[in-house]
Amino acid sequence: MSESRWQDTSVAGEISWLNPQNLTYGFVGLGLMGGSFARAIREKVLGRPSSCGKIFACDINGASLTQSLSDGIIDSGFTLDEAPTMLAQCDVVFICLYPHATLQFMEKNRSHFKSHSIVTDISGVKAEIIRNLPKILRDDVDFISGHPMAGSEKEGYTHASAKIFAGRNYILMPLEQNKAEHLTFFKNLVTDLGFTRIIETDAQVHDHKVAFTSQLCHVIAAALVNSAEDTQITAFGGGSFEDLTRIAMINAPLWTELFAANKAELLSHIDSFQQSLAELRHHLETDNQQAMCQLLEGVRTKRIAMSRIEG
Amino acid sequence: MSESRWQDTSVAGEISWLNPQNLTYGFVGLGLMGGSFARAIREKVLGRPSSCGKIFACDINGASLTQSLSDGIIDSGFTLDEAPTMLAQCDVVFICLYPHATLQFMEKNRSHFKSHSIVTDISGVKAEIIRNLPKILRDDVDFISGHPMAGSEKEGYTHASAKIFAGRNYILMPLEQNKAEHLTFFKNLVTDLGFTRIIETDAQVHDHKVAFTSQLCHVIAAALVNSAEDTQITAFGGGSFEDLTRIAMINAPLWTELFAANKAELLSHIDSFQQSLAELRHHLETDNQQAMCQLLEGVRTKRIAMSRIEG
Repeated sequence: MSESRWQDTSVAGEISWLNPQNLTYGFVGLGLMGGSFARAIREKVLGRPSSCGKIFACDINGASLTQSLSDGIIDSGFTLDEAPTMLAQCDVVFICLYPHATLQFMEKNRSHFKSHSIVTDISGVKAEIIRNLPKILRDDVDFISGHPMAGSEKEGYTHASAKIFAGRNYILMPLEQNKAEHLTFFKNLVTDLGFTRIIETDAQVHDHKVAFTSQLCHVIAAALVNSAEDTQITAFGGGSFEDLTRIAMINAPLWTELFAANKAELLSHIDSFQQSLAELRHHLETDNQQAMCQLLEGVRTKRIAMSRIEG
Repeated sequence: MSESRWQDTSVAGEISWLNPQNLTYGFVGLGLMGGSFARAIREKVLGRPSSCGKIFACDINGASLTQSLSDGIIDSGFTLDEAPTMLAQCDVVFICLYPHATLQFMEKNRSHFKSHSIVTDISGVKAEIIRNLPKILRDDVDFISGHPMAGSEKEGYTHASAKIFAGRNYILMPLEQNKAEHLTFFKNLVTDLGFTRIIETDAQVHDHKVAFTSQLCHVIAAALVNSAEDTQITAFGGGSFEDLTRIAMINAPLWTELFAANKAELLSHIDSFQQSLAELRHHLETDNQQAMCQLLEGVRTKRIAMSRIEG
């Protein structure tokens, strides 16, 4: 990490964003995502043995905290009741909870965040967050709403890994009040963690696009597994079914919440997909091989163009 | 490869299946699949410098033959017109063509195969092959119909690789007249090439199962890419869309033919999938989060059970 990328524009009494190695990072929720961020910050930012910087975490699962302490990832663990004590010391807070729990936590702990700190979330739906901003924002705390487009079908701290961020997209929904130096700090931070593309957009565009790239894909994978006659079918598999349905090893409560919170966008994408599938089905049923082949050629061209953007 | 697995049961005048290193292998079609099989046999069976065994290939694409000769994979290349000359020398022939071309080639060259040789195909649909058996079978040639469940979204000899077979399934449709020693030889051969599970079934079961694990997945991936609003969407991707649609970089003429040749089975699977998708959509539209969560939990359990079989 080049020092020259971090410009000292701090004011007396405020946090210096010059050196991310000197900051204290707090995690609310140390599951797959919180744990992976904590690992990545330990490995790629603070280093071992640690610089002046620290990593704190609070979680309802004491075993995750104990494990992470013994892994040398976090410096201190806190129960949820002790969250105020933790938050008061943190310069950067990652809220790594389900969407509704994120809102509830931020509202409940509104007064406990450190003055001039940066708070970020990782919620997969954004309209509800933005709608509730007045309840969660404090003038002297900068909330940067983000969505790291990374994950795993495996859950919990034990599967956390800094590697899941390599080459991934990070979507940011900057607010008018976000300070430029905070945004710069945050973008540099996630770049150091392995993300290679940062998209800046608003909550509406986010929810529309992610309903397609993420939620619709999970719906399709779930529907496909649901329609399988038996579990022995993979003995006849050649990789396609396995690749399409790996994400069907789904965290059911989380995705139920994500689907419901983005209902209108998701329904609209399901409808478009159903129409597209019906078109292919029609060409097959009517033995229109010319139309089928043309459609598939178009799909091939489109997907190859996408893979250039995929990077 | 352990010698003890190959038992010499040959009769004077017939081919000895004792040592696969001494056999001559012929490829009809040296594209992605034919090329990958030829590479695997060179690397894992014959070795370099070669034993007594040889690899021959015929293809309409002279550049593939030239490249493969210079790669040290094949020993001789033949034009399609020269196929009879090649076939007369081959103990084991892999027909690596599209389904209809496979049938046409076998019928046209019925009299040219070497006596007592093994001939195999790799066609992704089997009912048509089996229906036409009387046209292609000769009493002194053993046809073992197979389907290697491996491939790539990339086409042609230049993308051929022995690695695509590692850990994959091989489906065999043995015929009553297949000689036991030929089946044993063939199963040992594909095991040596990297395949880890061999399924023996009939054409009907094959076409039913593969319509689900392979063809339906390609239809879904194509429909999903077709329904994407624009090619820029992958900037918002997190891996799910990319994994679901990699196979949409599809060989359009081949898959048009495969879909049409397995129409009834594929239509039936599309219908089941559409019903399953409609069920999820209904839970979403009616805000029935309990039913959605239950359905997703069931899918998770089912997919985890499948991944144990996936191996």
